[in-house]
Amino acid sequence: MLKPIRWSTTAYPALAYGTTLEVALKLSDNNTEQFNQTEIEARQPYPNSRKIYIEGSRSDIRVPMREISLSPTATRDGEETNAPLLVYDTSGAYTDPNIAIDLRAGLPAVRQSWIAERGDTETLANLTSDYGQQRRDDPSLDNLRFADVRPPLRAKEGCNVTQLHYARQGIITPEMEFVAIRENQQRAMQTTLAPQHAGQSFGANIPAQITPAFVRDEIARGRAIIPANINHPELEPVIIGRNFLVKINGNIGNSALGSSIEEEVEKMTWATRWGSDTIMDLSTGKNIHETREWIVRNAAVPIGTVPIYQALEKVDGIAENLTWELFRDTLIEQAEQGVDYFTIHAGVLLRYVPLTARRLAGIVSRGGAIMAKWCLAHHQENFLYTHFEGICAIMKAYDVSFSLGDGLRPGAIADANDAAQLGELRTLGELTKLAWQHDVQVMVEGPGHVPMQLIKENMDLQLDCCDEAPFYTLGPLTTDIAPGYDHITSAIGAAQIGWYGCAMLCYVTPKEHLGLPNKDDVKTGVITYKLAAHAADLAKGHPGAQQRDDALSKARFEFRWQDQFNLSLDPDTARLYHDETLPKDSAKVAHFCSMCGPKFCSMKITQDVRDYAAKHGFDSNDALQEGMREQSDVFTAQGGRIYHET
Amino acid sequence: MLKPIRWSTTAYPALAYGTTLEVALKLSDNNTEQFNQTEIEARQPYPNSRKIYIEGSRSDIRVPMREISLSPTATRDGEETNAPLLVYDTSGAYTDPNIAIDLRAGLPAVRQSWIAERGDTETLANLTSDYGQQRRDDPSLDNLRFADVRPPLRAKEGCNVTQLHYARQGIITPEMEFVAIRENQQRAMQTTLAPQHAGQSFGANIPAQITPAFVRDEIARGRAIIPANINHPELEPVIIGRNFLVKINGNIGNSALGSSIEEEVEKMTWATRWGSDTIMDLSTGKNIHETREWIVRNAAVPIGTVPIYQALEKVDGIAENLTWELFRDTLIEQAEQGVDYFTIHAGVLLRYVPLTARRLAGIVSRGGAIMAKWCLAHHQENFLYTHFEGICAIMKAYDVSFSLGDGLRPGAIADANDAAQLGELRTLGELTKLAWQHDVQVMVEGPGHVPMQLIKENMDLQLDCCDEAPFYTLGPLTTDIAPGYDHITSAIGAAQIGWYGCAMLCYVTPKEHLGLPNKDDVKTGVITYKLAAHAADLAKGHPGAQQRDDALSKARFEFRWQDQFNLSLDPDTARLYHDETLPKDSAKVAHFCSMCGPKFCSMKITQDVRDYAAKHGFDSNDALQEGMREQSDVFTAQGGRIYHET
Repeated sequence: MLKPIRWSTTAYPALAYGTTLEVALKLSDNNTEQFNQTEIEARQPYPNSRKIYIEGSRSDIRVPMREISLSPTATRDGEETNAPLLVYDTSGAYTDPNIAIDLRAGLPAVRQSWIAERGDTETLANLTSDYGQQRRDDPSLDNLRFADVRPPLRAKEGCNVTQLHYARQGIITPEMEFVAIRENQQRAMQTTLAPQHAGQSFGANIPAQITPAFVRDEIARGRAIIPANINHPELEPVIIGRNFLVKINGNIGNSALGSSIEEEVEKMTWATRWGSDTIMDLSTGKNIHETREWIVRNAAVPIGTVPIYQALEKVDGIAENLTWELFRDTLIEQAEQGVDYFTIHAGVLLRYVPLTARRLAGIVSRGGAIMAKWCLAHHQENFLYTHFEGICAIMKAYDVSFSLGDGLRPGAIADANDAAQLGELRTLGELTKLAWQHDVQVMVEGPGHVPMQLIKENMDLQLDCCDEAPFYTLGPLTTDIAPGYDHITSAIGAAQIGWYGCAMLCYVTPKEHLGLPNKDDVKTGVITYKLAAHAADLAKGHPGAQQRDDALSKARFEFRWQDQFNLSLDPDTARLYHDETLPKDSAKVAHFCSMCGPKFCSMKITQDVRDYAAKHGFDSNDALQEGMREQSDVFTAQGGRIYHET
Repeated sequence: MLKPIRWSTTAYPALAYGTTLEVALKLSDNNTEQFNQTEIEARQPYPNSRKIYIEGSRSDIRVPMREISLSPTATRDGEETNAPLLVYDTSGAYTDPNIAIDLRAGLPAVRQSWIAERGDTETLANLTSDYGQQRRDDPSLDNLRFADVRPPLRAKEGCNVTQLHYARQGIITPEMEFVAIRENQQRAMQTTLAPQHAGQSFGANIPAQITPAFVRDEIARGRAIIPANINHPELEPVIIGRNFLVKINGNIGNSALGSSIEEEVEKMTWATRWGSDTIMDLSTGKNIHETREWIVRNAAVPIGTVPIYQALEKVDGIAENLTWELFRDTLIEQAEQGVDYFTIHAGVLLRYVPLTARRLAGIVSRGGAIMAKWCLAHHQENFLYTHFEGICAIMKAYDVSFSLGDGLRPGAIADANDAAQLGELRTLGELTKLAWQHDVQVMVEGPGHVPMQLIKENMDLQLDCCDEAPFYTLGPLTTDIAPGYDHITSAIGAAQIGWYGCAMLCYVTPKEHLGLPNKDDVKTGVITYKLAAHAADLAKGHPGAQQRDDALSKARFEFRWQDQFNLSLDPDTARLYHDETLPKDSAKVAHFCSMCGPKFCSMKITQDVRDYAAKHGFDSNDALQEGMREQSDVFTAQGGRIYHET
């Protein structure tokens, strides 16, 4: 069923998801106190789906995909098979019923051998970070600490362990091959349903087939990154760049006012179940260090953080008391836990800060505001900027990628594309090039609140200033007037900027501006951004992107209701909405729905039209030719009159 | 508080919404059986708002607006007043506590004298439609019939009562003046918060001030319409055209499988409360005639229908049995009830039908499918096309506007912009010009399912083929893969096409493709489309559009939580989401929220930055100049090194 692609692809013995509801591991009987109430909802099977693995050039490169089985089409001449659809799968081992999940032990370390065999890392006897050691040795944290923390890895003296460094030496790493298979699989499916529309790619170069060599070259060029800390062996690698599928990030994290470790771990598994390609842990509340450990150990996706949040926590929220030494220790602490990318607000320069004073909404980025305050209090340049190469030294010792933070992003439509924002963007461009001198991977963060007519300018300036380093934007939100619906105001902007070339879209939940998102909000945010990213993939013309639309539309047209649900981004909600009016199972095979009822259904009528057309030969080439003839000719030929009596 | 505009504007004695909860009429004690359980939720006050009326050149032109009062800003030097904000108000008399609402009597007939004084109409002694008479005389319908049906008006012999006809004679009608005031008021507000971004209008000509003469000229040109049936005197006129604010339509209507008259009336009042500019009653179930009467009599917005739905109902769902005579009677029946615009699928030509046979999703428009079936069954040209001038004769006798239906719109991404769709569009262009020969107002319907890169082509072709007649699109949906979230997949497309020049956006609810929308779905659809339309208005650069964004962002920045809620499109949801984490009243004056907590709040830090900058003179022109200097210059001047030690 899989079309062979260039390198070895052995479909791994696939395991039926369909039988796993009872298999879904419940941790209530053998768990630490922390997780004793947790049922991992992310283990629930997707309907009519199974997890398969595509094997790469070696047996330990196993790329997960989800295969959705479809029911046959009933035709006059019997049944026609519908080929199953493969979809990109971010859900990790949780949806593989053959893998036992124990949150206390973490996920399988699928990258461990890849990292070890490169021979450029060493296992440290102790944590490097003072703070990390202090937390480890604090007995009061025993009841909430992840039990078996792996000893950290670090690059050997003089080594650089980044994917960018390898790529520039011409090396194709297992990580690169993994993402090539992952990105390519959609392309490899047979196109049988309908021709795909040509895309409009705005200068992106999206190949018909993604090869490991293409991945390497894009990384070497700085146009794509694989955030992949050597201390995050549980990671299933993901590539972020504008010549690849558009990715989305989901933010989680506690605050001083709420949420616990288990809630945050649950949000992470929940967000990745629904399609989050990366997760940022933005915790600013209690036990940030311990929360992060639980998240990273149980995450198959890249984890990002904003280290300045934790640093500020360490100085009791007094920004003026932040120091480079404290921040440096925090970076190392997090790097040794396995964080894959760091948001670093190094572009908030002293001289840009006054530019924000006349803004309607000032500085809305927390990291940006913290650094602005520090700069003003000390009347010194941002220490993240002055110590930028010191940060690079840490990044390359663990392969942490930069996400250069836009601390001066606009927080209101009025402030979009102003001097502060664009000044910072230019600085981020300079820092991108400096990081590249160290072979450190970089993406660049973007706004914020931007009206539609200014979105493309953001993308074009970023490509220009940052020499095509991947752009990673929050929304943008296209209006300020809809709190409670900002997942939508921002999806409008996100779909557009993804189309224009943005590599990753940071989700916005319905709670944006109003409160901390709960689990439902996380799901709504993720699904909203998955659809926006997919709309962007379609518009760019990603090969194979239209397959899922076509399969779903065909199912819809043929009243294969279950297939329509199962092919959708959120089968549960689609089924629920349908069943609100027509709950009976018989309605799921009915050739009508509650919108029109049996008599009026246009799809039923279309089938009659199709039958009639087939019977009467309407589908001949002549008929098609006639139909395409300009109506104006016909009208003119009739003397400009359409009919002869009223 | 209102800036004077060119014609007379007397703020009508304004009435506080805030006191009306107990005024909200409950119909339980004095009602027909039909409505005895109905509480009109649409009567509930908007928080901190009052209804005002702007008076035109005569005292019976009273244009409703909602004025939102704001609390003052606390500053170091005391309180600063925030001017109230006026917003466009579609909610009708329901939100005016001084108007008694009795659904059995209908809304006040605000247009009655305007129509009467033109002297070109006559009151008919009897209903013209056979079917209308039959329903009126059926005693079994007594318990659900609207009691006091007004005798219908019709144009006197030889007269044409359309707004287009008046406009072409240079007449400014009260309807035109009404919409001019309505559109202009936003522009007339003082701009004090922030400069508005320049728009990108794609050839739209949006004047700084909307005058009644401009309205007349746009209507005369065919570039805008005011759907305003002479039998709908309850209407508060609305203008639809690309040089005016982008409008939205909400669909309601029962189906054979569910919903009652009172539910549909409630959906109508509910949708207009939240901002629906027009309502389409798409009922296909029981008692279509009676349902429509209740809706029109209680609607302050234009009502549209698809008459072929009811016609098909009359022939028991057998499309082949439809006849021009039956359809004509249906048009007259509905025109005499006061329907303001009719969707007419006259572009579904016989020769286009075979073009749909190879589509992935065939014909998805119900009207299109019905006509296609009729054409094939009779092997004759669509009777809506051959009798188009007969339809025009009815339209101009009542001033019903055409909404030329896109019966061949694509129902799947794969089918977008295909020969069937574009062939039909060309025919709709011809029909537009034919309708204009009769001085009948026209808008043109558009798709459907369209990937982003093909949306602009739709808009540009429509402007070209239909000579700038207003475009009215369903979405478009930018991907097929998210049933349950199609309000969002379509809002992405709707915001874009609105920006490109689409005049009205037909909402899509979360139930699209799955079921009949309930009241919650209607609200979600309306708010989603309001924000999409507003994003389009911002992008086009409508004067004054940014005022509401600015006022809300200022409130947000200043932690005026109540003002932030009250200025939003949906204050109830914004407040609810906030209160999920911080329910206490004290939290609504707190200078932080649950996302960051008190220590980390970036807005609080920004205020510190601002204070510091003010104190230390950072806001000087020199500092601004320095900030705007290219960072690359600085970098170069430092010899390409940012700092001196790591």
